[in-house]
Amino acid sequence: MEQLKDKIRSHGIVLSDRVLKVDAFLNHQIDPVLMQAIGREFARRFRDDGITKIVTIEASGIAPAVMAGLELGVPVIFARKHQSLTLHDNLLTATVYSFTKQVESTIAVSTQHLSANDRVLIIDDFLANGKAAKGLISIINQAGASIAGLGIVIEKSFQTGRKELEEAGYRVESLARVASLADGAVQFID
Amino acid sequence: MEQLKDKIRSHGIVLSDRVLKVDAFLNHQIDPVLMQAIGREFARRFRDDGITKIVTIEASGIAPAVMAGLELGVPVIFARKHQSLTLHDNLLTATVYSFTKQVESTIAVSTQHLSANDRVLIIDDFLANGKAAKGLISIINQAGASIAGLGIVIEKSFQTGRKELEEAGYRVESLARVASLADGAVQFID
Repeated sequence: MEQLKDKIRSHGIVLSDRVLKVDAFLNHQIDPVLMQAIGREFARRFRDDGITKIVTIEASGIAPAVMAGLELGVPVIFARKHQSLTLHDNLLTATVYSFTKQVESTIAVSTQHLSANDRVLIIDDFLANGKAAKGLISIINQAGASIAGLGIVIEKSFQTGRKELEEAGYRVESLARVASLADGAVQFID
Repeated sequence: MEQLKDKIRSHGIVLSDRVLKVDAFLNHQIDPVLMQAIGREFARRFRDDGITKIVTIEASGIAPAVMAGLELGVPVIFARKHQSLTLHDNLLTATVYSFTKQVESTIAVSTQHLSANDRVLIIDDFLANGKAAKGLISIINQAGASIAGLGIVIEKSFQTGRKELEEAGYRVESLARVASLADGAVQFID
């Protein structure tokens, strides 16, 4: 998606060989017009897949997921990272290690909102080693729902997440695929 | 906003005299079509106020804020509750006590994205005692930016937040004002 790659080139900051900071338009400040374009692109790619729900993780997945949900006409569930008093009843959970934050956290989705009849599109802001994606897949499997695929805003293609997900049989659609962050520069695949 | 009040009546769950659970369309599962309508209503109310930025808090404020940002054509910043490795540089912070979660947390916004030239619309999912709103106001004041007002999805009018904010001189626009949650029923103001 050229519009996204242009934004990464102009506003992304390479912090290290492995960390790309996109706080200017995705992870802290959000560009709503870009999010709408991203939502439309996810919808275009999964339009014919019978999606009934989108599942993402708070917080940075919410904006692209809601825009995709608007385009596809389906609800969005965001997995919670921290249990709240109003979300205590029947939870599906998974443990996720965050490389960026260097902490292990439990993510949770209420059984209320996912059923065996659902066909789910997973959306997230980044795909690196795939830990978050696998946590969401575990939760969706626990609900008995089927998974149409994963829509990723930015894929770090030099890490193993995409390869592992594809080997497990999942379709991965990434809107920007970063081949390398070496020498402070963002190199994309194609 | 009648569409929102209808949704609260049909899908909200009164957990106690003080807690309204709206996990079905706002706090866990999100209804993107309703969020778009909410964003349009916030935009209508603040269209002529020279807004340059919207500021909200992760996670439940993001969806309504991004939809309002799309309508108003301005970026959205979501204050972070937990510092991440890619957001460590120059932070404006405030301490907020959450009644719902019964924890005190630090919220943070990078100095990169707010300046004295900004005119800010604050958007949040709930207004109860106003602790979160006051934390955001503190951060925006630290940046030297001006505040056009607060757009709230659901106001618990039986708590003191709105009164305190208005007494401090802030304009508060709430799309649903809950007068009471007594006896398991949601009563709205007007």
